[in-house]
Amino acid sequence: MPLPWKDSSTKLKHLPGIGQKTAQRLAFHLLRATPEEALSLAEAIRDAKEKIRTCTVCYNITDTDPCLYCVGPTRNKRTICVVEEAHNIMAIEKTRAYSGMYHVLGGSLSPLQGRGPEQLHIKSLIERLKGGTVEEIIIATNPNAEGEATAIYLSKLLKPLGVRVTRIGVGIPVGADLEYADEVTMLKAMEGRREL
Amino acid sequence: MPLPWKDSSTKLKHLPGIGQKTAQRLAFHLLRATPEEALSLAEAIRDAKEKIRTCTVCYNITDTDPCLYCVGPTRNKRTICVVEEAHNIMAIEKTRAYSGMYHVLGGSLSPLQGRGPEQLHIKSLIERLKGGTVEEIIIATNPNAEGEATAIYLSKLLKPLGVRVTRIGVGIPVGADLEYADEVTMLKAMEGRREL
Repeated sequence: MPLPWKDSSTKLKHLPGIGQKTAQRLAFHLLRATPEEALSLAEAIRDAKEKIRTCTVCYNITDTDPCLYCVGPTRNKRTICVVEEAHNIMAIEKTRAYSGMYHVLGGSLSPLQGRGPEQLHIKSLIERLKGGTVEEIIIATNPNAEGEATAIYLSKLLKPLGVRVTRIGVGIPVGADLEYADEVTMLKAMEGRREL
Repeated sequence: MPLPWKDSSTKLKHLPGIGQKTAQRLAFHLLRATPEEALSLAEAIRDAKEKIRTCTVCYNITDTDPCLYCVGPTRNKRTICVVEEAHNIMAIEKTRAYSGMYHVLGGSLSPLQGRGPEQLHIKSLIERLKGGTVEEIIIATNPNAEGEATAIYLSKLLKPLGVRVTRIGVGIPVGADLEYADEVTMLKAMEGRREL
């Protein structure tokens, strides 16, 4: 006899962080729920896939094209912050200290994983500089080996175009203790010291 | 009947991170050990208390006065790195990137805990600047509220004396992901961005 909950349970299992048991628990919850509740979830998923696309200007995830950051009247068009993934934008927006534009690379340079400059949205970034409005590019790739390599590659590519290229600060996190800082971070914190 | 291991066990219990059971296990280990082994530990502890003192120049923990960093012929006498505690020096020495002098404050400014400027080794730091050799003071207090307050206090005090005052870099630690950075650290990383 075919089990009615088997198919939805199998599909739910593919979600990240959801295993066999959780998937089964979720499937049974949906079976117990009213048809409206279950269908509204199904529709929300379908809507998300239909409406959400990537912004053709900055490659952010958006439901309007260009995205809100690209057309926002209060956004500063003279600065572009370059990030690896769209979700990094959220981390920067939370600070409420940045009001410029963004550009999502779609990853970092990684020869081992076959990701070269052609696989990243670099050409479109250079296109965006042609208007002459952009004065500063802030490279906010992750401070690991691949993110640093990407930052150096981009700075060599962009500086000759007459734009200021900066890198986010690497160092001891706020609230941390020097005692627990690893050696490389401590080294970067000493190198990156600033005038007070 | 008095227990022969009771007294050493009680004393061992006062060490940090050592509770009732571990203290008892250590006491029994010492009882089983040869008299030479047990006595060598006792002597090492006595020696440490007799020989180790604080350096009269920089307040580092040392067995020679002035300490090795203060008299080392290869150390750069033009830079002083100011830290809260003596063990912070070890974190900086591990980077092998700094070869200047140190100054241990003995804590940070904390009005709530009754630690004002008089309780810290600040007067002696100003004394050290009088020779005119020192060109830069790197303030490496912890990047928390009290450490930052101490850094600002020191910079206001030292800058009028004609010395360059810098602060270690605060930001995303090396190898970390932007996604896991807290908002304040992300803010500091954006503020503290550097020209590439």
